Amino acid sequence: MTLLNSWVASANAPDAPFPLNNLPYGVFSTADSDPRCGVAIGDMILDLAAAEDAGLIPLTEALLFDVPFWNEVMEEGPALWAALRARLTELLAEGAPEKAELEALLVPQAEAEMHLPFLVSEFTDFYASKNHATNVGTMFRGPENALPPNWLHIPIGYNGRASSVVVSGTEIRRPWGQLKGPNDDAPRWAPSARFDLELEMGAIVGTASDGPVTVAEADAMIFGYVLLNDWSARDIQAWEYQPLGPFQAKATATSISPWIVTKAALEPFRTDTPAREKELLPHLKDCGPMLYDIELEVTLAPEGKAPSTIARTNYKEMYYSSAQQLAHHTTSGCPMNPGDLLGSGTISGPEKHQRGALLELSWGGKEPITLDTGETRSFLEDGDTLTLHGAAKGAGYTIGFGDCSGTLLPALADPYKR
Amino acid sequence: MTLLNSWVASANAPDAPFPLNNLPYGVFSTADSDPRCGVAIGDMILDLAAAEDAGLIPLTEALLFDVPFWNEVMEEGPALWAALRARLTELLAEGAPEKAELEALLVPQAEAEMHLPFLVSEFTDFYASKNHATNVGTMFRGPENALPPNWLHIPIGYNGRASSVVVSGTEIRRPWGQLKGPNDDAPRWAPSARFDLELEMGAIVGTASDGPVTVAEADAMIFGYVLLNDWSARDIQAWEYQPLGPFQAKATATSISPWIVTKAALEPFRTDTPAREKELLPHLKDCGPMLYDIELEVTLAPEGKAPSTIARTNYKEMYYSSAQQLAHHTTSGCPMNPGDLLGSGTISGPEKHQRGALLELSWGGKEPITLDTGETRSFLEDGDTLTLHGAAKGAGYTIGFGDCSGTLLPALADPYKR
Repeated sequence: MTLLNSWVASANAPDAPFPLNNLPYGVFSTADSDPRCGVAIGDMILDLAAAEDAGLIPLTEALLFDVPFWNEVMEEGPALWAALRARLTELLAEGAPEKAELEALLVPQAEAEMHLPFLVSEFTDFYASKNHATNVGTMFRGPENALPPNWLHIPIGYNGRASSVVVSGTEIRRPWGQLKGPNDDAPRWAPSARFDLELEMGAIVGTASDGPVTVAEADAMIFGYVLLNDWSARDIQAWEYQPLGPFQAKATATSISPWIVTKAALEPFRTDTPAREKELLPHLKDCGPMLYDIELEVTLAPEGKAPSTIARTNYKEMYYSSAQQLAHHTTSGCPMNPGDLLGSGTISGPEKHQRGALLELSWGGKEPITLDTGETRSFLEDGDTLTLHGAAKGAGYTIGFGDCSGTLLPALADPYKR
Repeated sequence: MTLLNSWVASANAPDAPFPLNNLPYGVFSTADSDPRCGVAIGDMILDLAAAEDAGLIPLTEALLFDVPFWNEVMEEGPALWAALRARLTELLAEGAPEKAELEALLVPQAEAEMHLPFLVSEFTDFYASKNHATNVGTMFRGPENALPPNWLHIPIGYNGRASSVVVSGTEIRRPWGQLKGPNDDAPRWAPSARFDLELEMGAIVGTASDGPVTVAEADAMIFGYVLLNDWSARDIQAWEYQPLGPFQAKATATSISPWIVTKAALEPFRTDTPAREKELLPHLKDCGPMLYDIELEVTLAPEGKAPSTIARTNYKEMYYSSAQQLAHHTTSGCPMNPGDLLGSGTISGPEKHQRGALLELSWGGKEPITLDTGETRSFLEDGDTLTLHGAAKGAGYTIGFGDCSGTLLPALADPYKR
């Protein structure tokens, strides 16, 4: 696969994140328009509601794009997903006869506000990078008990809170919580002092299931991927998580990037999961290359200062793919729905600079990292802007994800003293 | 409070579950009508969509009841909830001038099919009966570590799966899962052999929040209560639950009773939580009597046989109330929405016959219980019908909940051998 040229010139640079090969889906508004569906091409957005209204995307009787979410397209299923992608590729390709008509329907990204691209039905977060699980396990339970006995057999996951998922750019308020250090006599109510990021990919379920599905069927159900930051209050987590798992530590917010990169756009970047250390049960085995080669980077910018890169890793570092996670999610008969969001789990590589959370990068705060500004960080400080970047690199083109960013605001005064 | 008489005669018996004092809300359909909102009175249902259409419930400009869920009423907020209850009390009271007109809008419960009474936004399950937590903790971790250190300080909860919530009467399919006994070398894929019930109450959040709320505010947000059975596969749970909590073990189904008993109907039955063994942090303290005196009973009927009572307990056995659970749920800033469902956690009293799960009743299968039929049970067997019953007993009247029932169907053949 090489670069497909578009009549939108800004799409054709080798490092442009949104070439014709990508065509990611989002929801945008402008000063004059309500949120509606659009597709990114170069530094522009094609207004799909307007294009549909002009009769340029004649796929269904029903209108699909004049709504602030992509769930209706997802529900139409993979045949429509393919037809839509084919039609958009045709319309935006160099030489398309509709160019003049479409030019009037382009909106500069710089003038658009982005919104959550879909209604999040339910949110599940996994724990599927072996390096991350080993690092965290070592800190929480010691090196002998680092990896739980089930970890090599099940993609471990827990249900998160869909209501807390926000789009990139939303400010994040440092939460209060119940905290108790190992040497404290009793818990206290205080702002989280160990607020962290988690670098993840989010897989978006596009079609429903009502019973166990195979890994291949699960792969077919996935509509696309976003970058995902599962903000985590480590001090709240440490005190609350046993025996039933994380709860309020993970409920303040989860940020996602605004553009859904479709599974179709990522097809050329498929890659195998790593060698299995224990044989998986048959229903969880890979049925082909299930991961993607996506370069990931985390930057941290202190308030008013330039960003430093604090981690670089790759989605192919995962032990379990999203399709395997989704298949496991259905084993008990759990119904899955369009708009369900599955977080991959924190993505950490084997090297120190490849770790996807400050908890790991600073080894629980014992080894603060140093930013390019000379400042150090164990956990996030008020005013820090944290940004996830992601890109799959093809021959002369890039499939970019659009940033997933959030600025940490200071905790409010005690919300219970009014 | 004594019995309020209705012109619907069947509502006036002292043990009738749905007297004028109750007025629980449900969604029903008949052979001739689509699902719509109704209120139970005696052995009848008043068709609220029809009553609204006839101009008898003039509360809002918008129509509220010709939809298959109560979420729109919830979103209107407590003032409308009170006005609706007052109007229905007026219309259904003995001597109401509208009697003749309303009689034509009554549907016998025996002819109606009940549906989920609301759209479940998200589902959270708690672990808030001290007897249950102590029993389960003793079995899983030994008597020294039975109660986790955080338990007396936080209402421990985890996010469940809203898509798996079903209405009473829905058949439950025994799930397959990944199982590994303590002496097995490796996990295997098999039907759950330790499938269980959990006797709980469900609190329904009626209004939204977007930041920490006090216990009093949380109490005001609750619309009503249902009976809830959180079906649980104990063998799947034992292998999967560490370190991130229950996942597929709790995702097959959660059944709820079809009638939402309003907070207003339960007001006369408020009762205090038990004495605190550790002082709670100020934001979690009770602000008045926060529990309710509701008698609960579980019956089990083997296929084709009469039911045996296997447990009797009371909602007042809880250590934490739903309002305290909801307040805790918001501490991190987690947004709550109308239709959020909070399971109380399994309700077990101090006595053996008061335990709300077979796991406890049979002490992990070591002490099978004997049914009235002479059969024994450690866990549920195929064909068993499990029913939760609940009632608050007033002076000469009863606030009934309507049963929460489900029959366990045998596991399908291996879903991955097709």
